[in-house]
Amino acid sequence: MRMYDLIKKKRDGKSLTAQEIKWFIENYVNGTIPDYQVSALLMAIYFNGMDLEETTALTFAVRDSGDTLDFSDVKGIRVDKHSTGGVGDKTSLIVAPIVATLGVKVAKMSGRGLGHTGGTVDKLESIPGFNTGLGVDEFLEIVNRVGIAIVGQSAELAPADKLLYALRDVTATVESLPLIVSSIMGKKLAADDDCIVLDVKTGSGSFMKTVEDSKRLARLMVDIGKQAGKKMLALITDMDRPLGFNIGNILEVKEAVETLRGKGPSDLTEICIALAAHMLSLAEKGTYEECEDKVKKVIADGSALKTFADMVEAQGGDSRVIYDTSLFKEAKFSRVVKAEKSGYIVKVDTEGYGTAALLLGAGRNTKEDKIDFTAGIILSKKTGDFVKAGEAIATLYTNSGEKLDAGERKLIESTVIGDEKPAYKPIILDKVQ
Amino acid sequence: MRMYDLIKKKRDGKSLTAQEIKWFIENYVNGTIPDYQVSALLMAIYFNGMDLEETTALTFAVRDSGDTLDFSDVKGIRVDKHSTGGVGDKTSLIVAPIVATLGVKVAKMSGRGLGHTGGTVDKLESIPGFNTGLGVDEFLEIVNRVGIAIVGQSAELAPADKLLYALRDVTATVESLPLIVSSIMGKKLAADDDCIVLDVKTGSGSFMKTVEDSKRLARLMVDIGKQAGKKMLALITDMDRPLGFNIGNILEVKEAVETLRGKGPSDLTEICIALAAHMLSLAEKGTYEECEDKVKKVIADGSALKTFADMVEAQGGDSRVIYDTSLFKEAKFSRVVKAEKSGYIVKVDTEGYGTAALLLGAGRNTKEDKIDFTAGIILSKKTGDFVKAGEAIATLYTNSGEKLDAGERKLIESTVIGDEKPAYKPIILDKVQ
Repeated sequence: MRMYDLIKKKRDGKSLTAQEIKWFIENYVNGTIPDYQVSALLMAIYFNGMDLEETTALTFAVRDSGDTLDFSDVKGIRVDKHSTGGVGDKTSLIVAPIVATLGVKVAKMSGRGLGHTGGTVDKLESIPGFNTGLGVDEFLEIVNRVGIAIVGQSAELAPADKLLYALRDVTATVESLPLIVSSIMGKKLAADDDCIVLDVKTGSGSFMKTVEDSKRLARLMVDIGKQAGKKMLALITDMDRPLGFNIGNILEVKEAVETLRGKGPSDLTEICIALAAHMLSLAEKGTYEECEDKVKKVIADGSALKTFADMVEAQGGDSRVIYDTSLFKEAKFSRVVKAEKSGYIVKVDTEGYGTAALLLGAGRNTKEDKIDFTAGIILSKKTGDFVKAGEAIATLYTNSGEKLDAGERKLIESTVIGDEKPAYKPIILDKVQ
Repeated sequence: MRMYDLIKKKRDGKSLTAQEIKWFIENYVNGTIPDYQVSALLMAIYFNGMDLEETTALTFAVRDSGDTLDFSDVKGIRVDKHSTGGVGDKTSLIVAPIVATLGVKVAKMSGRGLGHTGGTVDKLESIPGFNTGLGVDEFLEIVNRVGIAIVGQSAELAPADKLLYALRDVTATVESLPLIVSSIMGKKLAADDDCIVLDVKTGSGSFMKTVEDSKRLARLMVDIGKQAGKKMLALITDMDRPLGFNIGNILEVKEAVETLRGKGPSDLTEICIALAAHMLSLAEKGTYEECEDKVKKVIADGSALKTFADMVEAQGGDSRVIYDTSLFKEAKFSRVVKAEKSGYIVKVDTEGYGTAALLLGAGRNTKEDKIDFTAGIILSKKTGDFVKAGEAIATLYTNSGEKLDAGERKLIESTVIGDEKPAYKPIILDKVQ
């Protein structure tokens, strides 16, 4: 087999066989095939796409490119939730403790953030002492005892994805449906879960700009997951606005705690209840409606928050900050951003909001960047709200005062104020199963 | 400027500016931009093409990526001829001495062959003692004295093309019009000629499979050459058959000598007269008809052959083999290939004929391969000829007897014998100026 022939075949719009795809991934990971041939193939895939068989084969090849996990020592049904990434998306911190409280196990591997979307691992590491680098035995012990543990993705899991993603990132081939699907599902399937609920974000803050594109992505991921023997469901949710009011690591943990207390923002609460209830229902804990009631109950009685605190404690973190979030460190500098004119917030560029938080120090531009956990944004107004000239639309936080100007500029240029109140848009747009 | 943005722009079907293209080439040649980003851009160009402005900018950037030559010490008008590459194409060996005999100067840089097409430099090196690696002073001295000198392309000339071609070759991005144009013309324009006549090959033995594609390629090259201040003309010629009867280095030199003696095959003779007459006419040596007469005269009186022999002598070669080609080395092994059935030769796969010669040792698969100068094919029959079962269609030559089987198989499978005599097809198909 020659890589040249695979590139030419895909370039000419033909389908690659499962055998060819497996060969390509194996030989890329072992260093035989050079980056420059892979990037040419990726661009050809960008233009000519891949059919379901090819996408499935690529996903399975990515899954099989390194270790696959064995969670059989975990007692009970294992459920995972995955978001395609958004701004202010702290749902994992909320839904994982909820479903663990209700008897399913969450053995979660999460990523770090890069660019305008934050990573769950970064958010957890903003809790003093929290250790996301547990060994396998310790990880599974905590899952069995507390019901939940969350660690960083290990390099041995789906190494092909690490290589491919790094290459796509610098060759403008990230936005390709089969490449997105195989990246997400290749990693997910390398873990050992029984059920997976996907949260496919749609809009200005995510890869998928339209509901149609998101449904196509969801359909592919659900079908491929089922082929791998998983129970699957996907929600299509809105990312034309940040989720909740808080963006940035410590700020998002605080908002997650508020939501686990039943005092969270309505959009975040609604999405978390739906995700958790679907996870439970997939795990056969009752009908969707029954599961929804259970979810509301463990929020109301504080038991979900306790599970979160227990996990923090088990992973070496200081759980006092969970019960009293005022104990978290605060940023040295803050600035209130004011509306330049009166009117409705007609729309926002969610990615722009993510970038504003990044500029304040809340994220990474390159893998080597160090995050300022206190940095971020608390919004005072969201899409659809009326704001008067001079009234606050957000407050910026950072430990580096010189970053405030750039963050403010980005936030303002990402906010459109106009005369007409925009139409109401639900947060949950569709469901694929 | 970021390479990522250039890739994305081209991927999205937008045009790159001349400044962006210049920046890309400069930074690729100086090693700043990695191959994997360039191959992604090349594949995006393959899919989305380039407009005339982009193609011109890329051509000029390739031209300016290294040294450009100064032929101002050469007395008289300098004319070059370039073929897009074919099988059995020994026209340079014939037309260059003809026009030099008639008072224009040919200071020619030629390439080596790779794959199924032979290179002029290889053919010349099959003449004992011939030196294609002259220094600039010696080269120009011979041009002034004899009227013609032919050397190998130096690495300092258009180094961007060397890098780009090597990358295109392994990433299935060779067959892209703007990339072909910028490669050919980038090199041609780095030399210092007044007029350039292009021979754009069409059919099964060349990049361009249809006359329409060839005319598009010719139009672009002619227009870009004119923009660079050259007098330009392109002939579109047939490569659905090998040119002449001989394929392989020594065999082609012999056929070139026959043609310079006025005893060459009719297709080769016709194309050489046309190319030479157009070169002379561009150089203002008379009308096309007047120039055609002059060409025929210097063939008939032997003066063109003498110029060829003088060049061989001047470049260190043994000119006795030119006057008596039986002095050339002969292959140790030969085999007559016979027709398996009676009928007309309906069509041949010219590239297959080139590959058969390659398999016999006449060419290179990789740059490191050593050529067997005696190896090749002499055809007995060509497209349109009638052949009886068992009658010879060709004779194969090689110094490695074990190569005969593969060569014979390739030749037979590349020859289609049928009942119907194919329609006559002229060798010169069109002209672009």
